[in-house]
Amino acid sequence: MNQSVPPAPGEFDLIDWIRRRSPADERVPLGIGDDCAAVRIAAGAQALVTTDMLMDGRHFRLAEHGPEAVGYKALAVNLSDIAAMAGVPLAAFVAVALPRDRAAEVARGLHAGMTPLAARFGVVLAGGDTNAWDGPLVVSITVLGETVAPGPVLRSGARPGDAIFVTGPLGGSLLGRHLHPEPRIVEALALHRAFALRALIDVSDGLASDLDHILTESGGLGATLDAGAIPVHADAEAMGRQDGRSPLDHALNDGEDFELCLVVAPEDAARLLADPPSPARLHRIGTVDSAPGLRLRSPAGDVTPIRPRGFDHLASDRRG
Amino acid sequence: MNQSVPPAPGEFDLIDWIRRRSPADERVPLGIGDDCAAVRIAAGAQALVTTDMLMDGRHFRLAEHGPEAVGYKALAVNLSDIAAMAGVPLAAFVAVALPRDRAAEVARGLHAGMTPLAARFGVVLAGGDTNAWDGPLVVSITVLGETVAPGPVLRSGARPGDAIFVTGPLGGSLLGRHLHPEPRIVEALALHRAFALRALIDVSDGLASDLDHILTESGGLGATLDAGAIPVHADAEAMGRQDGRSPLDHALNDGEDFELCLVVAPEDAARLLADPPSPARLHRIGTVDSAPGLRLRSPAGDVTPIRPRGFDHLASDRRG
Repeated sequence: MNQSVPPAPGEFDLIDWIRRRSPADERVPLGIGDDCAAVRIAAGAQALVTTDMLMDGRHFRLAEHGPEAVGYKALAVNLSDIAAMAGVPLAAFVAVALPRDRAAEVARGLHAGMTPLAARFGVVLAGGDTNAWDGPLVVSITVLGETVAPGPVLRSGARPGDAIFVTGPLGGSLLGRHLHPEPRIVEALALHRAFALRALIDVSDGLASDLDHILTESGGLGATLDAGAIPVHADAEAMGRQDGRSPLDHALNDGEDFELCLVVAPEDAARLLADPPSPARLHRIGTVDSAPGLRLRSPAGDVTPIRPRGFDHLASDRRG
Repeated sequence: MNQSVPPAPGEFDLIDWIRRRSPADERVPLGIGDDCAAVRIAAGAQALVTTDMLMDGRHFRLAEHGPEAVGYKALAVNLSDIAAMAGVPLAAFVAVALPRDRAAEVARGLHAGMTPLAARFGVVLAGGDTNAWDGPLVVSITVLGETVAPGPVLRSGARPGDAIFVTGPLGGSLLGRHLHPEPRIVEALALHRAFALRALIDVSDGLASDLDHILTESGGLGATLDAGAIPVHADAEAMGRQDGRSPLDHALNDGEDFELCLVVAPEDAARLLADPPSPARLHRIGTVDSAPGLRLRSPAGDVTPIRPRGFDHLASDRRG
């Protein structure tokens, strides 16, 4: 952002400032500056839409993390939802309630955090809504993408006996990783191209919760996870030393890892592990069961039921 | 809403409650419940996307207006942006920051305000993001639509000599009309079908401001408005009696009327007035000029420059 001339504080100046920094893209014939943006969806594809709202004090702390980190995270978590359908992101729409006393500065910081990430994934910042108020910063982003043949990968396709994988280590994201997740867009597309994925989700609420979404949407199935096979992040170890919870408990329940959790047919499992489509890294963590509920198998072979305790956006207040 | 069973306060219960009330629609093969929604865009059409964020104390007052009115307004203003492209709305995505102490009640009220409007225009509530916090209510809606042949009507197509129309009386919306605007979807589609619209916008910031957007986007043109021809709403008269500003000033600058302002070629103007495509009502209010700037012609024939003083979302605090 070496071309940054501070915009005047008016809304239209700010929008113009952003608009001048938005490169043209043939997929977005109409970007910022009209009543709507217009986006071309490929023939045969469906539009994918996801939206996530982040609030100061809940998903981030503006004073501590700064607006660039917030902009990055707000876009990344939406891109992660496109990855969770094995789709291609096309355009982002950014609605903000800016703290009035530093509205233009925060807007520029958000923009600076978003643009490199958007550019890396070919996403056009194609519109939004800019407001200021006396309340805390709220950033609500909607990402428009498109499905890739043979179609989106849903949560609902798991079957008993299927193998469960995750793409990376989990737990302890609150130590800082939750601010700069890597959306697994490229990994999801590579997996979707090479394998018939039965079900796919990104780990946002927590592995146990998100896997439970897959099992519920697949008709009330269950799963048995191998405790020794779940990749535990070093941050989960560090948090465990602080709070006395086990690192595995952090890996199962912390969330905001934004790795992918995927389910494939048993006959694909060995091939997937032997020849993971680059750049995806894969850990087989368990198996889908016909009996409802989540179970954890210890290295010694004991099986105990576990309950998801992931992020409930209405009840708890864990982030920020 | 006679089937309303109060949902438990958890996020997933609330999402399930909303999901059970979302009718299936062949245009939306995947609605609430996965990482993204999937929407079919008609062959040859482009996706249209618009987003508007409404905040308590700024665009509404929750304690006074209640959540149903807020839900209606939040969806209606987005639908109005689709109308302003002469597009067809398909799906809405609703991100909310709910006041924690009455989150479920407010969510249900918002939903009750949106659903009849959505149903009337064939719009599917296809996704969103539900959060609670200690701050004021924030509702950010994104609407996905599609263009209608021969394409979207932009702001940028006006030419000198073109005739300027609006679809209804303006001014004084703050007395209450701003809460329940009628999105001019049907009118825009009828106009687009019958005439080659050169430019189109909805009156949200104020007639003078919104017309100025058209003139600026059309290459720096101007316009002369006939003071006697601008339809002034009775609310503008009432507000004028309260604050001493002229009713015409209110009609030019208040905004949130959500009528359409359209521009057609001079040869279409008489036909448009003689045979307005139902249900659109049309008022010819002026003419596009090659000389930049807005001018007002009095009934006596005097022409004076005027400056738009419409809503700046960063600077002022007029709504609510």
